[in-house]
Amino acid sequence: MTSPLVKPDPKLDLVLERDIDVPVELVWKAWTTPAHVRHWFVPKPWTITACEIDLRPGGVFSSTMRSPEGQEFHNIGCYLDLVPNERMIFTDTLLPGYRPSPKPFFTAALLLERRGSGTRYTAMAIHGEEAARKRHEDMGFYHGWGTVLDQLVAYIKQSMQ
Amino acid sequence: MTSPLVKPDPKLDLVLERDIDVPVELVWKAWTTPAHVRHWFVPKPWTITACEIDLRPGGVFSSTMRSPEGQEFHNIGCYLDLVPNERMIFTDTLLPGYRPSPKPFFTAALLLERRGSGTRYTAMAIHGEEAARKRHEDMGFYHGWGTVLDQLVAYIKQSMQ
Repeated sequence: MTSPLVKPDPKLDLVLERDIDVPVELVWKAWTTPAHVRHWFVPKPWTITACEIDLRPGGVFSSTMRSPEGQEFHNIGCYLDLVPNERMIFTDTLLPGYRPSPKPFFTAALLLERRGSGTRYTAMAIHGEEAARKRHEDMGFYHGWGTVLDQLVAYIKQSMQ
Repeated sequence: MTSPLVKPDPKLDLVLERDIDVPVELVWKAWTTPAHVRHWFVPKPWTITACEIDLRPGGVFSSTMRSPEGQEFHNIGCYLDLVPNERMIFTDTLLPGYRPSPKPFFTAALLLERRGSGTRYTAMAIHGEEAARKRHEDMGFYHGWGTVLDQLVAYIKQSMQ
């Protein structure tokens, strides 16, 4: 069943698209395995100190990020739509089990397409209001998600291939 | 794949459970067909003047309710989890395509169980905060959802059997 994912709206959404030279299967595995996520999911020298994944719609996707000064930030959301090696949609507007979150912010969509031995990698942050898009951009979306993608590719090449 | 639906929390959630003497298949059909929804989905003398259904995760579920004085209220949300004749979960915290809603309120779960020729009907409103549960209760959740269920059963008996 196809998912009626919205077309990105430049006023509301942020999109990072890049061709990377690692296969879709390893990208999917790196995104869906806590032991892998910890190695690349936040720009260094920040670290991931915890990650929980229940890979089914309604299941938890959470991570705890620690700053170099030791301050921790916990992110929690739930998966909405999962097609292995193709599409992952999750949101922090809902907690696991689809309970509305007291702090809704955005929905994330990761779209993967096989390109030879590599991957067309598209990551979208979908917001409900322009102010949320702007806040996310000001937080450093492009630099942050771009750095994390560099780390993901380097990690796959060093440790998963 | 089972859905990790939260157990209802009395502080946060509202639950209506009742055994009704109409079959699950007709309850499901009445809930998922706009032409049927219009006949029972709001306590009379209010009316439903429009209803849109795209029955897949991420798809729209919207309705427009009109008061006897002619004032209209538009509700829009998206489906999250659908198992025909068993389970329907939708939320107004997300718009169709999983875009965060500017006015999030609650997630609804409809659970159906066959009981002979009838149905164990459970409807849940799942909130993120106690204040939202209280607001929903003060809006007349039990009376409203109970009346709508009476109307649903009467409609099925009169027009669908």
